[in-house]
Amino acid sequence: MKGLTIHKTEHPKAKPAKGAKLGFGAVFTDHMMLMNWDKGQGWHDARIVPYGNIELSPAATVLHYAQETFEGMKAYRADDGRVLLFRPEENFKRMNISNERLCIPQLDVDFCVESLKELVMLDADWIPEQEASSLYIRPMIIGNEAKLGVKEADSYIYAVLLSPSGPYYESGLKPVPIYVEENFVRAVRGGTGFAKTGGNYASSMRAQEIAHEKGYSQVLWLDGVERKYIGEVGAMNIFFVVDGEVITPELDGSILSGITRKSMIQVLRDKGYKVTERRIAIQEIADAYDAGKLTEIFGTGTAAVISPVGELKWGDKVMKINNGEIGPISAYAYKTLTDIQWGRAKGPEGWSVEIGHI
Amino acid sequence: MKGLTIHKTEHPKAKPAKGAKLGFGAVFTDHMMLMNWDKGQGWHDARIVPYGNIELSPAATVLHYAQETFEGMKAYRADDGRVLLFRPEENFKRMNISNERLCIPQLDVDFCVESLKELVMLDADWIPEQEASSLYIRPMIIGNEAKLGVKEADSYIYAVLLSPSGPYYESGLKPVPIYVEENFVRAVRGGTGFAKTGGNYASSMRAQEIAHEKGYSQVLWLDGVERKYIGEVGAMNIFFVVDGEVITPELDGSILSGITRKSMIQVLRDKGYKVTERRIAIQEIADAYDAGKLTEIFGTGTAAVISPVGELKWGDKVMKINNGEIGPISAYAYKTLTDIQWGRAKGPEGWSVEIGHI
Repeated sequence: MKGLTIHKTEHPKAKPAKGAKLGFGAVFTDHMMLMNWDKGQGWHDARIVPYGNIELSPAATVLHYAQETFEGMKAYRADDGRVLLFRPEENFKRMNISNERLCIPQLDVDFCVESLKELVMLDADWIPEQEASSLYIRPMIIGNEAKLGVKEADSYIYAVLLSPSGPYYESGLKPVPIYVEENFVRAVRGGTGFAKTGGNYASSMRAQEIAHEKGYSQVLWLDGVERKYIGEVGAMNIFFVVDGEVITPELDGSILSGITRKSMIQVLRDKGYKVTERRIAIQEIADAYDAGKLTEIFGTGTAAVISPVGELKWGDKVMKINNGEIGPISAYAYKTLTDIQWGRAKGPEGWSVEIGHI
Repeated sequence: MKGLTIHKTEHPKAKPAKGAKLGFGAVFTDHMMLMNWDKGQGWHDARIVPYGNIELSPAATVLHYAQETFEGMKAYRADDGRVLLFRPEENFKRMNISNERLCIPQLDVDFCVESLKELVMLDADWIPEQEASSLYIRPMIIGNEAKLGVKEADSYIYAVLLSPSGPYYESGLKPVPIYVEENFVRAVRGGTGFAKTGGNYASSMRAQEIAHEKGYSQVLWLDGVERKYIGEVGAMNIFFVVDGEVITPELDGSILSGITRKSMIQVLRDKGYKVTERRIAIQEIADAYDAGKLTEIFGTGTAAVISPVGELKWGDKVMKINNGEIGPISAYAYKTLTDIQWGRAKGPEGWSVEIGHI
């Protein structure tokens, strides 16, 4: 395509064996895309090159001041060999929202989508065939000025990495235990919580580490101001089913506007469920549990699609959700969305984008 | 020294001309220090090598999840040729506090101080002679696991960069205009505000950029919860002189525990000033101004030492501080601290550390 050069590898790597456990984001394909931005020049030198290390000045902005944004999306292999993306323009639009918050130059969304298609098709043989496996796609931008003054960089690198990845939970879709984090805060209104930027993840690592030590899978974040309203779970959005109604926290500037979240809301509404986006207090969830009305909880995100919650702990209170089993709405949502993503069912116009065939 | 290898450059760079404007953090010396940490191995391969680019996997943790900490300190050239550091162990102790928050392995403080001395003396000819100039020292740690799962890395790089730097304000110590930031939030209790980590700086860039567009030097951050208590100014701590008393925000977990801040408190107390660390509402400062009791404001930090504030804007209220002139306490504090740092006066035991002579 115009404006994109392709330099193919002369040393293709061995692909993972069929049926191998791929893990998540650990194996990378033969190629990656790179593009540079420099002041006065804009984005330039878009190129697909062999996957490999990059050279940075040790003074590069990203290494000191975390000026970085990223995205997460997937390419799917349908049973009949079609290669599919899921709402790719949504990711690049969101990346531009993150970029604005982080003082990073705006991307041309169409160019990013089109060049991504070229990259994915070049490495399409890497898209795994295993059940619930896919090619994870990681667009990223890093600030790259070799100067220690605290300010936005005058130089950036855009990259897209491809990683054949297995199901997020190796042992299959099964409910996980989580607890309400009461010490650490992930984000606050006025901060960067709505942006996909490294700092949000750096600040969440310590709580996540402690959760794992205690045998929990994730933490449920409360708002940083009043510490009583629900935000996200780990790095996912969260949904509750209370008295048959599906509720999820509204986009208040401190949580990520998940594309799986948005798609889930539509899929459930299309099926006739009532789905409400609003402020949700943790106390309200506990009360609903006590009244026997809290029937399901699940997280949504690109990596896991759906992550059902089997246990929610808040202080001393332990809430067992649906006897630790996957609930009917979680199961319906997972099947419906993954059927669309893997091309087994037709979704709303424009969601599943066929980019080629293998 | 034991455990440190030195590989000297064979291509020394041209040093900046005497009297050249150095700027801040833009020029780097001939050497840098590197050290690696790997799981099961701990810190290893401490080495001084020629300054140059580093190679990273594009999937390295730091580039996606901002797992990074850093420090800022200086080496000073006294008039008689002594090379001095200022309380270096304090920086590495603080780095360990940042490291704990960011799930980064702890450093051996003594080893870091001793190896820093070797590095600085190797490049001691780079310490500028100009008035108020010094060798800025930037220790840093970055997470370096080539995997996209969100968790702490299993591999780290520690580096120390040296940058001959001019006075932070090229035009000399003169009061700057700042305003109270009311939209953006830098940090909140439970977050990472007390740690020297990239995410705090990334989240502050947008507000800083807007401030510059409006002709202001910095923003004054309020707390992220009630949005009424004073935090930091730009990337510095802040002090107010009200009715002869010096007041500064207490360390509440959302502001950085500045080494210049701590030193300033002691220097002023030693001189007989009353210095109080406590919660300070912006309304209280406005009231003090209206009552004619707000006589000085200044920021403190390693880069600028002292940055007097000549104008403070809060919404529509514009407060002119000391007629836009440097006040007597700011001037005393600056002279006293810089005299100790440049070896012109003897400070408290252990503050000024002589590491060699040029």
